[in-house]
Amino acid sequence: MNFASDNWAGAAEEVIAAVVAESRKVAPAYGRDPLSASVEAEFSRIFEREVAVFFVATGTAANGLSLAAVSRPAGLIFCHKAAHVISEEAGGPEFATGGAKLIGMPGRQAKITGAALAEVLKLYPAETVRHGQAAAVSISQTTELGGVYRPADISVIGAVARQAGIALHMDGARFANAVASRNASPAELTWRAGVDVMSFGGTKNGALAAEAVIFFDPAKAANMPFLRQRMGQLLSKNRLIAAQFAALFADGLWLRLASHANEMAGQLAAALEHVPGARLAFPAPANEVFAILPAERAANAIKAGAMFYEWHTDSLMPDEMPGKGEALYRLVTSFRTEAREIEEFIKLLR
Amino acid sequence: MNFASDNWAGAAEEVIAAVVAESRKVAPAYGRDPLSASVEAEFSRIFEREVAVFFVATGTAANGLSLAAVSRPAGLIFCHKAAHVISEEAGGPEFATGGAKLIGMPGRQAKITGAALAEVLKLYPAETVRHGQAAAVSISQTTELGGVYRPADISVIGAVARQAGIALHMDGARFANAVASRNASPAELTWRAGVDVMSFGGTKNGALAAEAVIFFDPAKAANMPFLRQRMGQLLSKNRLIAAQFAALFADGLWLRLASHANEMAGQLAAALEHVPGARLAFPAPANEVFAILPAERAANAIKAGAMFYEWHTDSLMPDEMPGKGEALYRLVTSFRTEAREIEEFIKLLR
Amino acid sequence: MNFASDNWAGAAEEVIAAVVAESRKVAPAYGRDPLSASVEAEFSRIFEREVAVFFVATGTAANGLSLAAVSRPAGLIFCHKAAHVISEEAGGPEFATGGAKLIGMPGRQAKITGAALAEVLKLYPAETVRHGQAAAVSISQTTELGGVYRPADISVIGAVARQAGIALHMDGARFANAVASRNASPAELTWRAGVDVMSFGGTKNGALAAEAVIFFDPAKAANMPFLRQRMGQLLSKNRLIAAQFAALFADGLWLRLASHANEMAGQLAAALEHVPGARLAFPAPANEVFAILPAERAANAIKAGAMFYEWHTDSLMPDEMPGKGEALYRLVTSFRTEAREIEEFIKLLR
Amino acid sequence: MNFASDNWAGAAEEVIAAVVAESRKVAPAYGRDPLSASVEAEFSRIFEREVAVFFVATGTAANGLSLAAVSRPAGLIFCHKAAHVISEEAGGPEFATGGAKLIGMPGRQAKITGAALAEVLKLYPAETVRHGQAAAVSISQTTELGGVYRPADISVIGAVARQAGIALHMDGARFANAVASRNASPAELTWRAGVDVMSFGGTKNGALAAEAVIFFDPAKAANMPFLRQRMGQLLSKNRLIAAQFAALFADGLWLRLASHANEMAGQLAAALEHVPGARLAFPAPANEVFAILPAERAANAIKAGAMFYEWHTDSLMPDEMPGKGEALYRLVTSFRTEAREIEEFIKLLR
Repeated sequence: MNFASDNWAGAAEEVIAAVVAESRKVAPAYGRDPLSASVEAEFSRIFEREVAVFFVATGTAANGLSLAAVSRPAGLIFCHKAAHVISEEAGGPEFATGGAKLIGMPGRQAKITGAALAEVLKLYPAETVRHGQAAAVSISQTTELGGVYRPADISVIGAVARQAGIALHMDGARFANAVASRNASPAELTWRAGVDVMSFGGTKNGALAAEAVIFFDPAKAANMPFLRQRMGQLLSKNRLIAAQFAALFADGLWLRLASHANEMAGQLAAALEHVPGARLAFPAPANEVFAILPAERAANAIKAGAMFYEWHTDSLMPDEMPGKGEALYRLVTSFRTEAREIEEFIKLLR
Repeated sequence: MNFASDNWAGAAEEVIAAVVAESRKVAPAYGRDPLSASVEAEFSRIFEREVAVFFVATGTAANGLSLAAVSRPAGLIFCHKAAHVISEEAGGPEFATGGAKLIGMPGRQAKITGAALAEVLKLYPAETVRHGQAAAVSISQTTELGGVYRPADISVIGAVARQAGIALHMDGARFANAVASRNASPAELTWRAGVDVMSFGGTKNGALAAEAVIFFDPAKAANMPFLRQRMGQLLSKNRLIAAQFAALFADGLWLRLASHANEMAGQLAAALEHVPGARLAFPAPANEVFAILPAERAANAIKAGAMFYEWHTDSLMPDEMPGKGEALYRLVTSFRTEAREIEEFIKLLR
Repeated sequence: MNFASDNWAGAAEEVIAAVVAESRKVAPAYGRDPLSASVEAEFSRIFEREVAVFFVATGTAANGLSLAAVSRPAGLIFCHKAAHVISEEAGGPEFATGGAKLIGMPGRQAKITGAALAEVLKLYPAETVRHGQAAAVSISQTTELGGVYRPADISVIGAVARQAGIALHMDGARFANAVASRNASPAELTWRAGVDVMSFGGTKNGALAAEAVIFFDPAKAANMPFLRQRMGQLLSKNRLIAAQFAALFADGLWLRLASHANEMAGQLAAALEHVPGARLAFPAPANEVFAILPAERAANAIKAGAMFYEWHTDSLMPDEMPGKGEALYRLVTSFRTEAREIEEFIKLLR
Repeated sequence: MNFASDNWAGAAEEVIAAVVAESRKVAPAYGRDPLSASVEAEFSRIFEREVAVFFVATGTAANGLSLAAVSRPAGLIFCHKAAHVISEEAGGPEFATGGAKLIGMPGRQAKITGAALAEVLKLYPAETVRHGQAAAVSISQTTELGGVYRPADISVIGAVARQAGIALHMDGARFANAVASRNASPAELTWRAGVDVMSFGGTKNGALAAEAVIFFDPAKAANMPFLRQRMGQLLSKNRLIAAQFAALFADGLWLRLASHANEMAGQLAAALEHVPGARLAFPAPANEVFAILPAERAANAIKAGAMFYEWHTDSLMPDEMPGKGEALYRLVTSFRTEAREIEEFIKLLR
């Protein structure tokens, strides 16, 4: 009964097999091997345009490097105040960018809107040097509270960003879950909506450790080989990351795994309706369910072996707040979650 | 016939098996799992004292983080001028430390001496602010030209460092090869000789991607969790790195793999004596053979499928220089190298 | 009629005279002259304990260097959300510290409280690496909205900081005005209340360009010579800054100048009561008056030659907000302000 | 008898007078005053093209900011190994650039040549990520060993830099002395020869503290307002720096002061020929004389009150080395040096 996190789940068998096969081969280091090249090309097919791809080992690295590539001196980076980049990376973006300031914005279910961004940008006019200079906006897809932006939502943000001359970054740690959730293509959810650079996550979707920074305009990636190497993110056996993505992309595995996780979350959300006193804090379109539960019931379930976290956030709207004797909990499903686990968990809660 | 690099060699079967097994498990992320803890403890046994251990994905990260942990504002870090940290990491240490200056020193076979360090330190007295402040010395074991420091060599460097109040860092990307080469324990080659912090390499020794920063005084590691996380080097599936080290340490596999590589290098070095016009630039106590070969013979061997690099370095002493029609080549053996490959290679050369 | 800023006011005659005299002398550069030493010693007398003193050219430099000296990797620095360090320095502290994150807190008249700090610190427990590590709290004396902390206010903040193991920094750009305003000594307002390091301002108090970083525990200043030099803040003619402070400290000039500015602000505040529709947004204990004025009257006064700014801040409490047709304005007095200017200004407003 | 440094010399009367006059005025802060604008325009006249000008307080800041403006991630900056930027600024450029690596080159009298630069650049081909990327070359005019580049020397360096796609920076801490020494205009010595950005020094030439960063293509200065402010180098009373340059540029004072210093150096160099055992290490075309003196004579002169430094450098060619009983000394003249001081000094030496 792991609902603690999708990154507790180990790796999918197809991914494991690909890593094993590749580990037995001898091939050039540092990405100068044929597999790395072919998987990079595969990303271009998936996104329906030529992209520049840089494999890295963690999502924090992907985010820090993405933002370093698009930031500016005294840069301001706008994001939701619950965004991973501002709250969970121990100052990774500040470090990677040489001191950018992240500006947290409010917004329901950890989403920002283009309209809100336009308002905030007014506070930082280009001529006011002492405030720093707007450099980028970062959105998470799916969001840290389980939400999924629609292409249209992103397009508005993208238009505001373009108008302001700043870059749009997407933290796609759970991008597969968003694609699987929305009736939209990877292209529609990214560059067609104005995304300039993204962190493409594999690790939470059944890989061992596979993340990639994607530039939708390869011309803007000129500094990235240097940024990546000096941050220690160019693996000598880079092809082992490539192998993981190769497995994920073969026959659409990445979307099948994500769809499964989403489906499990849907079942879990539906089942929670039958738990007395339980309610969803938000809709659960992807693989994270945020539920308000009677604290005692939750504590009992945890004691009985269910793994999940109480969730602390200052990003709830008044109508989303837990009441007395209640608390907010995060329940994450993964490619490995089984219907049986949900049933057991619900039994424990009831 | 891969003599290009040990990091072309894929991974050892035992390591692969450990990763496969661990990938099938569900366990807490970010190193809060039992395997990570037990492998950290295993490092303490190997070094015969309590150490603090931080797994990371690459050697460049391990070096940058080690040096960041011991550097100072306007820090000066002394190393051989051929050291990986100064010449091969795209400014990684400069970046990770926030702008330290690396001072390259000369020395035979990419080794520095304590006496030379003491001389250089005189140029940077503590009271001369404008020069910056001495912060650390970094040595590579084995060195970038295939040398191996003896414990006594390191002890002298360590004593000079301690006297000067600076830290001694060891880049141990090929530490296993050094241990296997010298009749000395890991402890003798590190903290007993004055090493404060080291980058412990697994990747070149049969792992997929497994490096660790080791602090011999755990009290000095207080900042490292933050340094590592903000640099994107705390893997969510940290236990997969732990698993690789677990496999390497089981039954002394790490030293068996390194001994094999060293032995192959020894055979290769011996065989080269029978190649007309070939000679060793240096002794080859570990798994790298630097040979001066007739350029035409080398070119022919490469054409015929042998994989190895001509080596460019400004660190040769006059008596080590290639003559006319000759060049310097690096030949690296690995856990996977077979005697057959050496025979074939020698045949090609002759 | 300059109420735009105290840093528009040029310099006091005594300060000018001291700079002229010193400019005509030949003496060692980089602070190795006798005057620099004697003025440093004077700071120790003023603060009634031995302090370490570092002259710099700007307040932004003083703040950045102070915070760099006390920050930590992935450091969190707490301050009011209207603090100069977070909103007016183009990311100076983020840059100087190598990527610290500044956490803005609310609070009336740009003051924070020890109680609020204690609450915020609970959100960043030491063991939660991903949030970064609490490193310092910074308060401004006087505050950016013209307030003045009492020694008792600071002591509570200092106690919370000490308890949490973080440093307390004071941005004293207008410290003289605070000392002149409160019946309290420099010592009571700083180290006796728990301040560890401060930016001591001279420029807004009649100097040409004279700021200093003061460490109340000189042992903690070991890195500062290096931090200052690499940031280009060690002036070769450092003694010219020393000369300015020497003039300010002679016969208590610094407090006389500040008292005059404060008195003028008091007169201005009192006079505003007679302007129809005008009211103070806050008390004005030092040399800044924040007034809510009918926008049309303010616009007319500006057209007629009065120099002052409408003030934009998101730090007003609901009861401090301007109403319809009104706006908030900042009116700053200086050592040079004359009663006549206030009378003229009030005439223009009426 | 000050031959220790030109920055010991205080300030010229005209400069003092200008600062006094400006200090008595009330005017906008942060460079939004009319004087700052007019002096910026004056720089354009002096350089015979539109330039972007940024006043700062120190040469180290000017250098750090210049290099930050033109560096790149993992940037390599080439300079003479005796250059101020690499040896005297406590890692200022490394810090300001976020970790660039400075590569020291040899060369007579602290000059590099275009040919040598072209050779060094070959070691850092663009495609070799692990070496970092070439970003800039920095030359000092005059050099740290008293040399002066001719326009033709600079043009060759400029052509090599342009060819390599890297910027050419000039550290002009003693630029006035170079202009006064060469029969060449400021334009010929800078942008016409390929200089992109320079640190223009006033402090060593009779100012109190006045330096400027000059961009010869204003379009490349877009980030500089932010770089300068976050480094604490935008003085609130910026107009006081402007006033110093205004005085220096009025009636060509800057070149008269520099010519005087050069002339004094010429007299000193000539007079040294009559001191037994003394000889010049290099020609002395500007205001620094590097002399090899019998150590005992030098020691006696110092005891008798002469102020000058023995000079330590590893940049001497074999034929420039002091012999037994000799040492190298630096003797610097300034706008304030009097012929009488030289006579007295020579007397002491003889």
